Formats: sequence, C-alpha cells, structure tokens
Amino acid sequence: MRIGIIGAGTVGSTLGKGWAKHGHQVMYGVRDPRGTSASRVLAATGTGAQVGSVSDAAAFGTAVVLATPWQATRDALAAAGDLDGKPLLDCTNPLKPDLSDLETGHTSAAEQIATWVPRARVVKIFNTTGAENMANPVYAGQAATMFYCGDDGAAKEIAAGLARDLGFEPVDAGPLTSARLLEPLAMLWITLAFRQGLGRTFAFKVLRH
Amino acid sequence: MRIGIIGAGTVGSTLGKGWAKHGHQVMYGVRDPRGTSASRVLAATGTGAQVGSVSDAAAFGTAVVLATPWQATRDALAAAGDLDGKPLLDCTNPLKPDLSDLETGHTSAAEQIATWVPRARVVKIFNTTGAENMANPVYAGQAATMFYCGDDGAAKEIAAGLARDLGFEPVDAGPLTSARLLEPLAMLWITLAFRQGLGRTFAFKVLRH
Repeated sequence: MRIGIIGAGTVGSTLGKGWAKHGHQVMYGVRDPRGTSASRVLAATGTGAQVGSVSDAAAFGTAVVLATPWQATRDALAAAGDLDGKPLLDCTNPLKPDLSDLETGHTSAAEQIATWVPRARVVKIFNTTGAENMANPVYAGQAATMFYCGDDGAAKEIAAGLARDLGFEPVDAGPLTSARLLEPLAMLWITLAFRQGLGRTFAFKVLRH
Repeated sequence: MRIGIIGAGTVGSTLGKGWAKHGHQVMYGVRDPRGTSASRVLAATGTGAQVGSVSDAAAFGTAVVLATPWQATRDALAAAGDLDGKPLLDCTNPLKPDLSDLETGHTSAAEQIATWVPRARVVKIFNTTGAENMANPVYAGQAATMFYCGDDGAAKEIAAGLARDLGFEPVDAGPLTSARLLEPLAMLWITLAFRQGLGRTFAFKVLRH
C-alpha cells in the first residue's frame, strides 16, 4: 500500500519504519522536505520511504496518516489539500502543550462526589470493568488490571489491597483528577461489551516486560 | 476489614461476595433493608455479610464502597451521613441512564478533524500508545491491543490491517464518537508513563478467554 504520513516526529517515523519493513511504500509529508529532520527520518526508515511536502504525502497515499502535534493539526490539514474519500488515520491527541491534560474539556463523577463529601477520602476504583471480572479477574493465569486514583495515599493503599484481594493487579493512575480518564475507560468497556460484540468476559490489562 | 457497601446492585453485591470470601466483614447499605432484593443479596453473599440502611453501612465500614447508579449517587451520599476521614471507594460512572454516553461532557479531536476535512474517511487509531510499542507491540508473545474507531467500514478495515502489520491486535471501538474514549485512554497512557513511573514500555491489552 502507498501510505502518506503527515508529520515525521516520533510517532510518524516509527509507524513509517514499521510499514516500510512490511513492504509498504511510505512518504512523509513535512513542512520543510529539505530540512535535516526530514533526511534523518528518511535515513532511519530505510528502503521504500520518501519525503515530500505535506500535500505531496497526502496525494501519494492511498491511506493518509495524521501524526501531528494537536496544535499543528489544523494547519497541516489545510496544507494537505485534497483528502476526499481517503482513509485518514488520525493518531493525534488533543493534548495541552505540556501534556498535563486533554484540551477537550471534561470532568469526572469522582471530583463531583468529592465536593459532596469533602471530608471523605475518595478513591476512584472498581468502575472500569464488569461484575464478571470482579468475581473472577484472572484470564489464563493473568490478572486483569484495576486502575485507581485519588488524592489520599493511605486510602489508595486500602483500595488497592481490596482490589488485590479479589485477584486484580492494582495500578495507581495518580490523583483524583485521573478519574477523568478512568470514567471514559469505563465507557469504552461498556461500548466494547454491549455494542461491539465482545460480551462481558473481557478485561483491560497493562502489559509489561 | 469492615467494609460498608452503598448499593447492592450487580457491582456492589459481586464485590461484597468476593470480599466476604476473603474474610472481610461486609455490610450492604440499601434504601429498604427489609426488601426482597436486600435479602437476596444477603443470601448470595454468604457468611459475614449484613444488610442495613445506607447510614448503617457507612457507619459500619472502615472503608466505604460507593456502588450506586450515577443518578442515585448524590441522594445516597446525603443518606450516608458522616463519612469524615473514611476511605470512600467510588465505583460509579457518570453514565446517561441508557448507557449511551458519559454525562460529563467531552468531545474529541477526531470529530473536530472530521469537520475540517469532511470528505476524508477519518479513523482514530495509533493514538493510545507510545512509539516504542509501535516499533514492537509484543509482550512475551502477547500482542498489545490497538483500539480504533470511525464511521467508514472500509477505511476502518484498512486501518486495522495496518495495525496488524505492525504486530498489534486491532480492536474496533465503534463509531468516530468513540474517539471521546480513546483520547482519554491516550492521556491515561501518558499519565502512567511519565507521572506514575511505568515508563514507556507498557501497553494496554484486552484480555479474553
């Protein structure tokens, strides 16, 4: 396949290298095709890769990959020109420049709850999976992950221990504001279970070496 | 440990049963402690479990578990009474009653991008993990999951194939609006990698039987 990759940063260049190895033809689209970063990416990707302008890469690809920093995305699409009917693989994330949060604006039930009971030590936990997994979170010897977050270390240790008692591998996701991430993860579980046909017996796991 | 569980639905009763098996003392707090659902839960949980009012359970627990439907949560907390200093394990999700979405209000970069290039066939993909995983997504023989979503079936098939070429297990997360779930998942990856000390070599996996 011919793949145009808009953006030759870490994500774009890693994807391009993998696909080039797999026999796909890759063209990176960058703002300055004659710049040093362009030639560095080209050298790293090896055979089958080219560098051009953003519009060159967009025209080249039967599929186009969007791997730009969020703040540069709109301009990159304007520079891309005609993308009509093309599969556009969007790898962007609407991150603030310091990676501290998403820019899409969201809050969480957990933070709301903490305002209702301000002297309780709220931990978000047991919200990202179904009851079947709470009854048995082990898949072929592997413990499913239970993410949790909160602002009180001692309360979090209690919560993590209670997850471990059920057979989960607890993973600390940080302060209570991380509930903004764990509640959408619950919605992803629900979507996969009930709309995408996975049913109720699957679970999320953090794989590590 | 003494655990008070507010709400005796599927999640609350499954957690209580697991902890009772593990030797913890469990009390469910429900609106009607003499109702049939309360006695059913009690029978299912077995030894070590009790049922009381919401405030009984809150007072009983050294840790209190909040397992209510979102719409009932505020009233349940008001009924709970004093939770000062208690670990409050929040298992709720701010779901709309039909489970169609979160109520916390959020949007996605992908949907914004689709308005900028309305004739491209946008697929959200390759946003939920780091470049190391894109270079090698296999952990001890297990392929990391690559979630993707979009509104065009053929474009999604192309995107899934390109994920498979890199060694990922692609998992279809539904329509492009599911990017509202995949972008927070990216932020969770970033949070775990850079703030919670997991580093860049871990990946999300859907475990199945």
